[in-house]
Amino acid sequence: MWQLFQFPLCPFSRKVRLLLGEKGVGYELVRESPWARRDEFLDMNPAGQTPVMVDRAAGVTLIDSNAICEYFEETIEKSPMIPGSAADRAEVRRLVAWFDQILYREVVAPLLYERMEKRIVHRLPPDAKVLREAMKLANTHLDYIDYLIDYRRWMAGPLFSLADLAATAHLSVADYLGGIDWRGHEPTRLWYAGQKSRPSFRPLLSERMEVVSPPDHYDKPDF
Amino acid sequence: MWQLFQFPLCPFSRKVRLLLGEKGVGYELVRESPWARRDEFLDMNPAGQTPVMVDRAAGVTLIDSNAICEYFEETIEKSPMIPGSAADRAEVRRLVAWFDQILYREVVAPLLYERMEKRIVHRLPPDAKVLREAMKLANTHLDYIDYLIDYRRWMAGPLFSLADLAATAHLSVADYLGGIDWRGHEPTRLWYAGQKSRPSFRPLLSERMEVVSPPDHYDKPDF
Repeated sequence: MWQLFQFPLCPFSRKVRLLLGEKGVGYELVRESPWARRDEFLDMNPAGQTPVMVDRAAGVTLIDSNAICEYFEETIEKSPMIPGSAADRAEVRRLVAWFDQILYREVVAPLLYERMEKRIVHRLPPDAKVLREAMKLANTHLDYIDYLIDYRRWMAGPLFSLADLAATAHLSVADYLGGIDWRGHEPTRLWYAGQKSRPSFRPLLSERMEVVSPPDHYDKPDF
Repeated sequence: MWQLFQFPLCPFSRKVRLLLGEKGVGYELVRESPWARRDEFLDMNPAGQTPVMVDRAAGVTLIDSNAICEYFEETIEKSPMIPGSAADRAEVRRLVAWFDQILYREVVAPLLYERMEKRIVHRLPPDAKVLREAMKLANTHLDYIDYLIDYRRWMAGPLFSLADLAATAHLSVADYLGGIDWRGHEPTRLWYAGQKSRPSFRPLLSERMEVVSPPDHYDKPDF
Protein backbone atom coordinates (compact mmCIF):
# COMPACT_ATOMS: atom_id res chain seq x y z
CA MET A 1 0.00 0.00 0.00
CA TRP A 2 1.31 3.45 -0.92
CA GLN A 3 1.69 6.01 1.84
CA LEU A 4 1.37 9.69 0.91
CA PHE A 5 3.09 12.19 3.21
CA GLN A 6 1.15 15.47 2.99
CA PHE A 7 -0.91 18.12 4.79
CA PRO A 8 -4.45 19.19 3.83
CA LEU A 9 -3.50 22.52 2.22
CA CYS A 10 -0.42 21.37 0.27
CA PRO A 11 -1.34 22.14 -3.37
CA PHE A 12 1.29 19.77 -4.75
CA SER A 13 -0.07 16.90 -2.65
CA ARG A 14 -3.58 17.81 -3.84
CA LYS A 15 -2.43 17.55 -7.46
CA VAL A 16 -1.00 14.08 -6.77
CA ARG A 17 -4.16 12.99 -4.92
CA LEU A 18 -6.37 14.13 -7.80
CA LEU A 19 -4.24 12.12 -10.23
CA LEU A 20 -4.32 9.04 -7.97
CA GLY A 21 -8.09 9.44 -7.66
CA GLU A 22 -8.58 9.64 -11.44
CA LYS A 23 -6.41 6.56 -11.90
CA GLY A 24 -7.97 4.62 -9.04
CA VAL A 25 -4.73 4.13 -7.11
CA GLY A 26 -5.25 3.48 -3.40
CA TYR A 27 -3.08 5.12 -0.74
CA GLU A 28 -2.92 5.88 2.94
CA LEU A 29 -2.55 9.49 4.10
CA VAL A 30 0.27 10.32 6.48
CA ARG A 31 0.14 13.79 7.97
CA GLU A 32 3.42 15.73 7.56
CA SER A 33 4.02 19.39 8.42
CA PRO A 34 7.05 20.42 6.37
CA TRP A 35 7.51 23.57 8.47
CA ALA A 36 8.26 21.33 11.49
CA ARG A 37 11.35 19.99 9.66
CA ARG A 38 11.05 16.56 11.30
CA ASP A 39 14.37 14.68 11.16
CA GLU A 40 12.92 11.42 9.83
CA PHE A 41 11.17 13.33 7.04
CA LEU A 42 14.33 15.24 6.09
CA ASP A 43 16.21 11.92 5.97
CA MET A 44 13.61 10.66 3.50
CA ASN A 45 13.47 13.87 1.45
CA PRO A 46 16.38 16.31 1.87
CA ALA A 47 14.26 18.96 0.10
CA GLY A 48 11.91 18.82 3.12
CA GLN A 49 8.81 19.22 0.94
CA THR A 50 5.55 17.34 0.62
CA PRO A 51 4.37 15.25 -1.18
CA VAL A 52 6.46 12.11 -0.74
CA MET A 53 5.10 8.66 -1.58
CA VAL A 54 6.45 5.46 -0.10
CA ASP A 55 5.72 1.83 -0.87
CA ARG A 56 7.65 0.08 1.89
CA ALA A 57 6.92 -3.44 0.66
CA ALA A 58 8.34 -2.61 -2.79
CA GLY A 59 11.12 -0.42 -1.38
CA VAL A 60 10.15 2.56 -3.54
CA THR A 61 10.22 6.20 -2.41
CA LEU A 62 8.92 8.85 -4.81
CA ILE A 63 9.79 12.51 -4.22
CA ASP A 64 8.63 15.69 -6.01
CA SER A 65 5.05 16.06 -7.26
CA ASN A 66 6.13 16.11 -10.91
CA ALA A 67 8.20 12.92 -10.56
CA ILE A 68 5.29 11.26 -8.71
CA CYS A 69 2.72 12.21 -11.39
CA GLU A 70 4.99 11.02 -14.22
CA TYR A 71 5.60 7.75 -12.34
CA PHE A 72 1.90 6.92 -12.08
CA GLU A 73 1.26 8.14 -15.62
CA GLU A 74 3.88 5.62 -16.79
CA THR A 75 2.82 2.71 -14.61
CA ILE A 76 -1.01 3.00 -14.54
CA GLU A 77 -2.60 2.96 -17.96
CA LYS A 78 -6.09 3.90 -16.77
CA SER A 79 -7.18 7.50 -17.47
CA PRO A 80 -4.09 8.98 -19.13
CA MET A 81 -3.54 12.41 -17.62
CA ILE A 82 -0.78 13.51 -20.04
CA PRO A 83 -2.64 12.52 -23.20
CA GLY A 84 -2.18 13.10 -26.92
CA SER A 85 0.79 13.68 -29.22
CA ALA A 86 4.24 14.71 -27.99
CA ALA A 87 3.29 18.36 -28.68
CA ASP A 88 -0.01 17.96 -26.80
CA ARG A 89 1.89 16.47 -23.88
CA ALA A 90 4.33 19.40 -23.94
CA GLU A 91 1.37 21.79 -23.63
CA VAL A 92 0.04 19.84 -20.62
CA ARG A 93 3.48 20.02 -18.99
CA ARG A 94 3.85 23.73 -19.80
CA LEU A 95 0.60 24.51 -18.00
CA VAL A 96 1.40 22.26 -15.04
CA ALA A 97 4.68 24.18 -14.68
CA TRP A 98 2.75 27.47 -15.01
CA PHE A 99 0.40 26.55 -12.16
CA ASP A 100 3.05 24.86 -10.00
CA GLN A 101 5.54 27.67 -10.36
CA ILE A 102 3.91 30.98 -11.27
CA LEU A 103 0.40 30.64 -9.82
CA TYR A 104 1.97 29.04 -6.74
CA ARG A 105 4.64 31.71 -6.26
CA GLU A 106 2.39 34.71 -6.93
CA VAL A 107 -0.81 33.60 -5.22
CA VAL A 108 -0.80 30.31 -3.31
CA ALA A 109 2.54 30.58 -1.49
CA PRO A 110 1.88 34.07 -0.04
CA LEU A 111 -1.66 33.04 1.01
CA LEU A 112 -0.32 29.89 2.68
CA TYR A 113 2.37 31.84 4.47
CA GLU A 114 0.15 34.70 5.62
CA ARG A 115 -3.00 32.78 6.51
CA MET A 116 -1.64 29.39 7.62
CA GLU A 117 2.07 29.30 8.49
CA LYS A 118 2.12 32.67 10.27
CA ARG A 119 -0.82 31.55 12.38
CA ILE A 120 0.39 28.05 13.16
CA VAL A 121 4.13 28.63 13.46
CA HIS A 122 4.71 32.29 14.24
CA ARG A 123 1.38 33.17 15.90
CA LEU A 124 1.27 36.42 13.97
CA PRO A 125 -1.58 38.09 12.07
CA PRO A 126 -1.43 38.16 8.25
CA ASP A 127 -0.02 41.18 6.41
CA ALA A 128 -3.02 42.82 4.70
CA LYS A 129 -0.84 44.33 1.98
CA VAL A 130 0.62 40.96 0.98
CA LEU A 131 -2.89 39.43 0.94
CA ARG A 132 -4.23 42.23 -1.29
CA GLU A 133 -1.36 41.81 -3.74
CA ALA A 134 -1.89 38.00 -3.87
CA MET A 135 -5.61 38.47 -4.53
CA LYS A 136 -4.90 41.01 -7.26
CA LEU A 137 -2.55 38.56 -8.95
CA ALA A 138 -5.10 35.76 -8.47
CA ASN A 139 -7.48 37.88 -10.54
CA THR A 140 -4.91 38.11 -13.35
CA HIS A 141 -4.45 34.35 -13.24
CA LEU A 142 -8.22 33.82 -13.45
CA ASP A 143 -8.25 36.10 -16.52
CA TYR A 144 -5.66 33.85 -18.16
CA ILE A 145 -7.60 30.70 -17.26
CA ASP A 146 -10.82 32.30 -18.60
CA TYR A 147 -8.94 32.88 -21.85
CA LEU A 148 -7.68 29.28 -22.04
CA ILE A 149 -11.12 27.80 -21.34
CA ASP A 150 -12.82 30.20 -23.74
CA TYR A 151 -11.21 28.57 -26.73
CA ARG A 152 -10.46 25.05 -25.49
CA ARG A 153 -12.60 22.24 -24.14
CA TRP A 154 -10.21 21.70 -21.22
CA MET A 155 -7.25 23.60 -19.84
CA ALA A 156 -4.59 22.19 -22.19
CA GLY A 157 -6.77 21.32 -25.22
CA PRO A 158 -9.53 18.91 -26.24
CA LEU A 159 -8.69 16.36 -23.52
CA PHE A 160 -8.97 16.46 -19.74
CA SER A 161 -5.45 16.37 -18.31
CA LEU A 162 -3.02 16.93 -15.48
CA ALA A 163 -3.20 20.64 -16.34
CA ASP A 164 -6.83 20.66 -15.10
CA LEU A 165 -5.78 18.79 -11.97
CA ALA A 166 -2.89 21.17 -11.25
CA ALA A 167 -5.12 24.23 -11.70
CA THR A 168 -7.79 22.66 -9.45
CA ALA A 169 -5.20 21.86 -6.79
CA HIS A 170 -3.78 25.38 -6.61
CA LEU A 171 -7.06 27.26 -7.03
CA SER A 172 -8.74 25.13 -4.37
CA VAL A 173 -6.03 25.98 -1.81
CA ALA A 174 -6.25 29.67 -2.74
CA ASP A 175 -10.07 29.46 -2.45
CA TYR A 176 -9.84 27.75 0.96
CA LEU A 177 -7.66 30.63 2.12
CA GLY A 178 -10.17 33.24 0.91
CA GLY A 179 -7.95 34.44 -1.94
CA ILE A 180 -10.33 33.91 -4.88
CA ASP A 181 -13.08 36.27 -6.01
CA TRP A 182 -15.02 34.28 -8.63
CA ARG A 183 -17.11 37.25 -9.84
CA GLY A 184 -16.41 38.19 -13.44
CA HIS A 185 -14.72 34.86 -14.22
CA GLU A 186 -17.66 32.87 -15.52
CA PRO A 187 -15.69 30.44 -17.75
CA THR A 188 -13.35 29.49 -14.92
CA ARG A 189 -16.20 29.36 -12.38
CA LEU A 190 -18.17 26.92 -14.55
CA TRP A 191 -15.09 24.78 -15.15
CA TYR A 192 -14.35 24.75 -11.40
CA ALA A 193 -17.97 23.84 -10.56
CA GLY A 194 -17.44 20.78 -12.78
CA GLN A 195 -14.23 19.96 -10.94
CA LYS A 196 -16.06 20.14 -7.61
CA SER A 197 -18.38 17.35 -8.71
CA ARG A 198 -15.60 14.97 -9.78
CA PRO A 199 -15.23 11.91 -7.52
CA SER A 200 -11.47 12.50 -7.41
CA PHE A 201 -11.94 15.96 -5.86
CA ARG A 202 -14.92 15.54 -3.51
CA PRO A 203 -13.01 13.82 -0.67
CA LEU A 204 -10.41 16.61 -0.63
CA LEU A 205 -13.09 19.32 -0.41
CA SER A 206 -14.43 17.85 2.83
CA GLU A 207 -11.07 17.95 4.64
CA ARG A 208 -10.14 20.77 6.95
CA MET A 209 -6.86 22.22 8.14
CA GLU A 210 -6.81 22.75 11.91
CA VAL A 211 -7.03 26.42 13.04
CA VAL A 212 -7.70 27.71 9.50
CA SER A 213 -11.32 27.71 8.25
CA PRO A 214 -12.43 28.11 4.63
CA PRO A 215 -15.11 30.57 3.50
CA ASP A 216 -18.72 29.28 3.38
CA HIS A 217 -18.77 28.81 -0.40
CA TYR A 218 -15.60 26.67 -0.40
CA ASP A 219 -17.15 23.20 -0.71
CA LYS A 220 -20.52 24.25 -2.19
CA PRO A 221 -21.29 23.09 -5.73
CA ASP A 222 -23.01 26.46 -6.19
CA PHE A 223 -20.77 29.41 -5.42
CA MET B 1 14.94 23.83 -38.05
CA TRP B 2 14.33 24.38 -34.34
CA GLN B 3 15.00 27.82 -32.92
CA LEU B 4 16.01 28.08 -29.26
CA PHE B 5 15.32 31.39 -27.52
CA GLN B 6 17.89 31.80 -24.76
CA PHE B 7 20.77 33.82 -23.29
CA PRO B 8 24.26 32.47 -22.53
CA LEU B 9 23.87 32.28 -18.73
CA CYS B 10 20.33 30.83 -18.59
CA PRO B 11 20.81 27.53 -16.70
CA PHE B 12 17.50 26.10 -17.96
CA SER B 13 18.51 26.79 -21.57
CA ARG B 14 21.88 25.18 -20.87
CA LYS B 15 20.14 22.04 -19.60
CA VAL B 16 18.07 21.88 -22.81
CA ARG B 17 21.15 22.51 -24.99
CA LEU B 18 23.07 19.72 -23.24
CA LEU B 19 20.18 17.33 -23.89
CA LEU B 20 19.90 18.40 -27.54
CA GLY B 21 23.67 17.95 -27.89
CA GLU B 22 23.58 14.43 -26.41
CA LYS B 23 20.71 13.50 -28.72
CA GLY B 24 22.23 15.15 -31.80
CA VAL B 25 19.29 17.53 -32.43
CA GLY B 26 20.24 20.60 -34.47
CA TYR B 27 18.97 24.07 -33.56
CA GLU B 28 19.58 27.73 -34.18
CA LEU B 29 20.24 30.03 -31.22
CA VAL B 30 18.09 33.15 -30.86
CA ARG B 31 19.27 35.59 -28.24
CA GLU B 32 16.52 36.60 -25.81
CA SER B 33 16.92 38.71 -22.66
CA PRO B 34 13.91 37.86 -20.48
CA TRP B 35 14.54 40.92 -18.26
CA ALA B 36 13.79 43.15 -21.29
CA ARG B 37 10.22 41.76 -21.37
CA ARG B 38 9.97 42.07 -25.17
CA ASP B 39 6.31 42.10 -26.32
CA GLU B 40 6.76 39.48 -29.04
CA PHE B 41 8.44 37.15 -26.58
CA LEU B 42 5.69 37.60 -23.97
CA ASP B 43 3.10 36.86 -26.66
CA MET B 44 4.92 33.60 -27.35
CA ASN B 45 5.46 32.71 -23.67
CA PRO B 46 3.31 34.55 -21.12
CA ALA B 47 5.66 33.30 -18.39
CA GLY B 48 8.35 35.48 -19.98
CA GLN B 49 11.08 32.90 -19.33
CA THR B 50 13.72 31.23 -21.44
CA PRO B 51 14.08 28.63 -22.91
CA VAL B 52 11.43 28.53 -25.62
CA MET B 53 11.80 26.32 -28.70
CA VAL B 54 10.00 26.97 -31.96
CA ASP B 55 9.74 24.92 -35.13
CA ARG B 56 7.92 27.34 -37.43
CA ALA B 57 7.60 24.89 -40.32
CA ALA B 58 5.88 22.33 -38.09
CA GLY B 59 3.94 24.98 -36.16
CA VAL B 60 5.23 23.73 -32.78
CA THR B 61 6.19 25.94 -29.83
CA LEU B 62 7.67 24.29 -26.73
CA ILE B 63 7.76 26.20 -23.45
CA ASP B 64 9.33 25.34 -20.08
CA SER B 65 12.64 23.47 -19.85
CA ASN B 66 11.04 20.39 -18.31
CA ALA B 67 8.37 20.16 -21.04
CA ILE B 68 11.08 20.64 -23.68
CA CYS B 69 13.33 17.91 -22.27
CA GLU B 70 10.42 15.45 -21.95
CA TYR B 71 9.38 16.25 -25.55
CA PHE B 72 12.79 15.37 -27.00
CA GLU B 73 13.12 12.38 -24.69
CA GLU B 74 9.83 11.09 -26.18
CA THR B 75 10.53 11.92 -29.81
CA ILE B 76 14.27 11.19 -30.18
CA GLU B 77 15.25 7.66 -29.22
CA LYS B 78 19.00 8.26 -29.36
CA SER B 79 20.77 8.53 -25.98
CA PRO B 80 17.89 8.18 -23.50
CA MET B 81 18.39 10.80 -20.83
CA ILE B 82 15.60 9.59 -18.49
CA PRO B 83 16.65 5.92 -18.55
CA GLY B 84 15.74 2.80 -16.60
CA SER B 85 12.67 1.57 -14.74
CA ALA B 86 9.79 3.82 -13.69
CA ALA B 87 11.42 4.15 -10.24
CA ASP B 88 14.81 4.98 -11.83
CA ARG B 89 13.10 7.63 -13.95
CA ALA B 90 11.44 9.08 -10.84
CA GLU B 91 14.88 9.44 -9.24
CA VAL B 92 16.19 11.28 -12.33
CA ARG B 93 13.19 13.63 -12.21
CA ARG B 94 13.55 14.17 -8.45
CA LEU B 95 17.15 15.32 -8.90
CA VAL B 96 16.35 17.49 -11.92
CA ALA B 97 13.69 19.20 -9.76
CA TRP B 98 16.23 19.52 -6.94
CA PHE B 99 18.75 21.28 -9.18
CA ASP B 100 16.16 23.34 -11.10
CA GLN B 101 14.37 24.49 -7.99
CA ILE B 102 16.55 24.35 -4.89
CA LEU B 103 20.08 24.75 -6.29
CA TYR B 104 18.68 27.42 -8.62
CA ARG B 105 16.83 29.35 -5.92
CA GLU B 106 19.56 29.18 -3.28
CA VAL B 107 22.66 29.64 -5.44
CA VAL B 108 22.20 30.34 -9.14
CA ALA B 109 19.35 32.88 -9.02
CA PRO B 110 21.01 35.18 -6.46
CA LEU B 111 24.33 34.99 -8.34
CA LEU B 112 22.60 35.81 -11.63
CA TYR B 113 20.76 38.71 -10.05
CA GLU B 114 23.73 40.16 -8.20
CA ARG B 115 26.46 39.63 -10.79
CA MET B 116 24.55 39.89 -14.09
CA GLU B 117 21.12 41.51 -13.88
CA LYS B 118 22.12 44.24 -11.42
CA ARG B 119 25.04 45.14 -13.67
CA ILE B 120 23.19 45.02 -17.00
CA VAL B 121 19.78 46.35 -15.97
CA HIS B 122 20.21 48.39 -12.81
CA ARG B 123 23.87 49.39 -13.13
CA LEU B 124 24.42 48.67 -9.47
CA PRO B 125 27.23 46.78 -7.71
CA PRO B 126 26.49 43.33 -6.23
CA ASP B 127 25.55 42.95 -2.57
CA ALA B 128 28.52 41.21 -0.93
CA LYS B 129 26.34 39.71 1.79
CA VAL B 130 23.99 38.03 -0.70
CA LEU B 131 27.00 36.70 -2.65
CA ARG B 132 28.57 35.25 0.51
CA GLU B 133 25.32 33.52 1.47
CA ALA B 134 24.93 32.05 -2.06
CA MET B 135 28.51 30.74 -1.98
CA LYS B 136 27.96 29.22 1.44
CA LEU B 137 24.86 27.42 0.19
CA ALA B 138 26.76 26.36 -2.96
CA ASN B 139 29.19 24.61 -0.65
CA THR B 140 26.33 22.69 1.01
CA HIS B 141 25.03 21.67 -2.42
CA LEU B 142 28.49 20.46 -3.42
CA ASP B 143 28.56 18.36 -0.22
CA TYR B 144 25.28 16.73 -1.29
CA ILE B 145 26.57 16.10 -4.81
CA ASP B 146 29.81 14.64 -3.38
CA TYR B 147 27.63 12.27 -1.36
CA LEU B 148 25.57 11.24 -4.40
CA ILE B 149 28.63 10.61 -6.56
CA ASP B 150 30.43 8.80 -3.76
CA TYR B 151 28.03 5.89 -3.92
CA ARG B 152 26.70 6.06 -7.48
CA ARG B 153 28.32 5.88 -10.88
CA TRP B 154 26.37 8.95 -12.05
CA MET B 155 24.18 11.52 -10.33
CA ALA B 156 20.93 9.52 -10.36
CA GLY B 157 22.30 5.96 -10.42
CA PRO B 158 24.25 3.61 -12.68
CA LEU B 159 23.30 5.47 -15.89
CA PHE B 160 24.20 8.92 -17.21
CA SER B 161 21.03 11.01 -17.24
CA LEU B 162 19.27 14.34 -17.36
CA ALA B 163 20.16 14.72 -13.67
CA ASP B 164 23.85 15.02 -14.68
CA LEU B 165 22.92 17.53 -17.38
CA ALA B 166 20.81 19.62 -14.98
CA ALA B 167 23.58 19.69 -12.38
CA THR B 168 26.13 20.62 -15.06
CA ALA B 169 23.89 23.42 -16.34
CA HIS B 170 23.37 25.04 -12.94
CA LEU B 171 26.90 24.50 -11.59
CA SER B 172 28.44 25.88 -14.79
CA VAL B 173 26.45 29.12 -14.50
CA ALA B 174 27.36 29.41 -10.81
CA ASP B 175 31.03 28.72 -11.72
CA TYR B 176 30.95 31.35 -14.49
CA LEU B 177 29.72 33.86 -11.92
CA GLY B 178 32.53 33.00 -9.48
CA GLY B 179 30.23 31.27 -7.01
CA ILE B 180 31.92 27.86 -6.80
CA ASP B 181 34.92 26.95 -4.67
CA TRP B 182 35.91 23.46 -5.84
CA ARG B 183 38.38 22.83 -3.03
CA GLY B 184 37.37 19.99 -0.74
CA HIS B 185 34.86 18.59 -3.23
CA GLU B 186 37.01 16.07 -5.08
CA PRO B 187 34.18 13.69 -6.17
CA THR B 188 32.17 16.53 -7.71
CA ARG B 189 35.29 18.15 -9.19
CA LEU B 190 36.28 14.92 -10.96
CA TRP B 191 32.72 14.39 -12.22
CA TYR B 192 32.60 18.01 -13.48
CA ALA B 193 36.00 17.63 -15.20
CA GLY B 194 34.43 14.74 -17.13
CA GLN B 195 31.45 16.90 -18.00
CA LYS B 196 33.79 19.60 -19.36
CA SER B 197 35.21 17.17 -21.89
CA ARG B 198 31.81 16.05 -23.25
CA PRO B 199 31.13 17.23 -26.82
CA SER B 200 27.65 18.39 -25.72
CA PHE B 201 29.15 20.81 -23.18
CA ARG B 202 32.30 22.15 -24.88
CA PRO B 203 30.52 24.65 -27.19
CA LEU B 204 28.67 26.18 -24.23
CA LEU B 205 31.90 26.64 -22.26
CA SER B 206 33.38 28.81 -24.99
CA GLU B 207 30.47 31.28 -25.02
CA ARG B 208 30.60 34.53 -23.11
CA MET B 209 27.98 36.86 -21.69
CA GLU B 210 28.66 40.49 -22.55
CA VAL B 211 29.92 42.66 -19.66
CA VAL B 212 30.28 39.67 -17.28
CA SER B 213 33.55 37.68 -17.42
CA PRO B 214 34.11 34.24 -15.91
CA PRO B 215 37.09 33.38 -13.66
CA ASP B 216 40.22 32.01 -15.40
CA HIS B 217 39.56 28.39 -14.47
CA TYR B 218 36.00 28.43 -15.91
CA ASP B 219 36.64 26.66 -19.23
CA LYS B 220 39.88 24.87 -18.26
CA PRO B 221 39.78 21.07 -18.16
CA ASP B 222 42.15 21.35 -15.19
CA PHE B 223 40.80 23.51 -12.37
